[in-house]
Amino acid sequence: MTRWMVSPGEIPSAWFNVVPYLPAPPASPLHPATHQPVEPDDLAPLFPAALIEQEMTRAPWIEVPGEVLDILRLWRPTPLVRASRLEQALGTPARIYFKDESGSPAGSHKPNTAVAQAFYNARAGLRRLTTETGAGQWGTALAFACAQFGLECEVYMVRASFEHKPYRRVIMETWGGSVVPSPVDQPDHPGSLGTAISDAVRAALGRGDTHYSLGSVLNHVLLHQTVIGLEAREQLALAGERLPDVVIAPCGGGSNLGGIAFPFVPEAGVRLIAVEPLSCPTLTQGRFDYDFGDSAGLTPLLPMYTLGHDFVPPSIHAGGLRYHGVSPLISSLVRDGRMEAVAYPQGKVFEAAVHFARLEGKVAAPEAAHAIRAVIDEALAAKETGEEKVILFNYCGHGFLDLSAYDDYLHGRLHDEQG
Amino acid sequence: MTRWMVSPGEIPSAWFNVVPYLPAPPASPLHPATHQPVEPDDLAPLFPAALIEQEMTRAPWIEVPGEVLDILRLWRPTPLVRASRLEQALGTPARIYFKDESGSPAGSHKPNTAVAQAFYNARAGLRRLTTETGAGQWGTALAFACAQFGLECEVYMVRASFEHKPYRRVIMETWGGSVVPSPVDQPDHPGSLGTAISDAVRAALGRGDTHYSLGSVLNHVLLHQTVIGLEAREQLALAGERLPDVVIAPCGGGSNLGGIAFPFVPEAGVRLIAVEPLSCPTLTQGRFDYDFGDSAGLTPLLPMYTLGHDFVPPSIHAGGLRYHGVSPLISSLVRDGRMEAVAYPQGKVFEAAVHFARLEGKVAAPEAAHAIRAVIDEALAAKETGEEKVILFNYCGHGFLDLSAYDDYLHGRLHDEQG
Repeated sequence: MTRWMVSPGEIPSAWFNVVPYLPAPPASPLHPATHQPVEPDDLAPLFPAALIEQEMTRAPWIEVPGEVLDILRLWRPTPLVRASRLEQALGTPARIYFKDESGSPAGSHKPNTAVAQAFYNARAGLRRLTTETGAGQWGTALAFACAQFGLECEVYMVRASFEHKPYRRVIMETWGGSVVPSPVDQPDHPGSLGTAISDAVRAALGRGDTHYSLGSVLNHVLLHQTVIGLEAREQLALAGERLPDVVIAPCGGGSNLGGIAFPFVPEAGVRLIAVEPLSCPTLTQGRFDYDFGDSAGLTPLLPMYTLGHDFVPPSIHAGGLRYHGVSPLISSLVRDGRMEAVAYPQGKVFEAAVHFARLEGKVAAPEAAHAIRAVIDEALAAKETGEEKVILFNYCGHGFLDLSAYDDYLHGRLHDEQG
Repeated sequence: MTRWMVSPGEIPSAWFNVVPYLPAPPASPLHPATHQPVEPDDLAPLFPAALIEQEMTRAPWIEVPGEVLDILRLWRPTPLVRASRLEQALGTPARIYFKDESGSPAGSHKPNTAVAQAFYNARAGLRRLTTETGAGQWGTALAFACAQFGLECEVYMVRASFEHKPYRRVIMETWGGSVVPSPVDQPDHPGSLGTAISDAVRAALGRGDTHYSLGSVLNHVLLHQTVIGLEAREQLALAGERLPDVVIAPCGGGSNLGGIAFPFVPEAGVRLIAVEPLSCPTLTQGRFDYDFGDSAGLTPLLPMYTLGHDFVPPSIHAGGLRYHGVSPLISSLVRDGRMEAVAYPQGKVFEAAVHFARLEGKVAAPEAAHAIRAVIDEALAAKETGEEKVILFNYCGHGFLDLSAYDDYLHGRLHDEQG
């Protein structure tokens, strides 16, 4: 049996826009000061016109520029892999496939949008992008992308990570990015994603040649990630599968979930499942409401599930899933019943990750491990019922820079925050 | 243009044995006590019969067992990638391809032989393998392989690495390996590869259900790595290339070089180049002689280039290239003029690695970076002469666990030992 099923030749030439396929049209974001619907001009100080257009469009397909394809080709199409050894070990009749996004330069799905954002900003004549980063996943991706288009990249990194987890800083610097500990004006403050966003936005607004870049949540970011699901659809067909029965991905801001799931939204029979940490249960325990995207209340108000923009989740290892809100597009799919959500405590998540590593040889990022947990439970449910279910999940990143989390789990130092 | 060229379907079903194609038959190893040629029985306390047979055979092809193929399939065939952006930046007429071995479970080529060794030992009824590891590359690969066949894996890790570079220890433990700091009987001693080999060999000899495993140097180890070159040959043909003009790989013990280069030895027109660090210049400045494989003088005497078994190389970042000797098969090819060797100081090596990372998006292991340095110099030479050379190199591993070396280079703390 062939395990690697790479589509012959090309990656998708257009992104898939889920907006026309939503059960209900999404509500508009509101201006933080006026509480009126945001107009394109309101976003112009931070984003180029092409991205604002993509943020608001209802066209079903958006062409991927050739310059973006040229860079994506460095690692795309990514492999679709059948997890046969996991299937065997579980004794499940389910067929389990994962889309392996861990082979990208940054080791995750994040560069899919970073490259597109850097391209449109460079084409619009910008010289510099700023962004925030927690442990460094997103900053890494943007530093890589900026290097491809000759843009400067300024990353405001939470000071505690900057000082204690230097490795992602080193990767950003290897790609020519400059990394600044945040908050910039309080050298004794450990920092937070909130302070880093404020620093990055301020640094962009102060200069005419500089824009700001975001790695999740917004419509255009999730749009760029749909190459994942589009490739997976084609590769599943090459493997002789019609459609998956279930699509599973972890959900923080929502970009890797949207990336793999959106192209399956029009297929009514395909279940879509978001997996989140029990310690930051935005979709399973949050409320659907307008809320700010940042803790300081500088961004537009977004219609989404939220735990409140002042919610501070415990410092669990899956840093990418520690966000108080979730993409408005994902939120509307969950609210309207087209997508399900489950939450797990991190002990159960790492148990699944170690099982997967021993069987499939891959050490998953803690974010990806959340999906693996839900996949195993779906496959065991299929064993109970005898269903030959096809399960597809997003292996959104490797864990080579998250090994202290495995160390804590293996040596009994990982404590479940709740549940 | 398609950048990913994965051979359709299967990985090689037989390993390629270079011995019948050597310019001169290799001399036999000598028993450390008697200085007489080693007999199969001499090796039986450490290795199973199948591996001893492979160590000594002159058959040109050895079938890969189905059980080994089943595991290799988790990440093989590995992609052959054209480094178009590097070509463009250099302005060279050369076409540069690399075989990407970094996607294996351990992030390097090492599992290719670890899986085979674990299989033959398990089939022979052994319960446990011991080995040594420096920074952890080889120990990681063997821990993964043992997990696949239900063997226990005991890794003796140089104490300084055990204490200061814990991440590879964590991966070994994730796969169920047990990791012991060496020397075992001197808790204040920082350890060395020499002490770790002694500990691992002693731990194997003491127990009838336990064997010892080596990750490079020996004939059977290099044999298992030839899947790399065999796949590359087939993939180059799919890409429309007849044969490479030059094949380049880093050389420590010789296993990744042998793996990619041996299948091209019978093609007289293909140049083969070994790249080593100037601080451990075994092939370029060592002598060809019988020498021990370990510092304590416990192993058979091997006919090879050596800097002397008591040579202690400076602690450069490419830990995999810090070995006083080099595989007898590689040594005989260099001695007889079939293979060339070059040496570089590590500053030039990291300069090339950063250039490659910015263009191709891949952060290389320091070992792989040695090959990249030589590839760039070959491509620049082709630019001078206008030759449309085809260059193939082995991208033998990623650098996600070697980022402190990049940090040192980027911040001016990496000092060239010499040259």
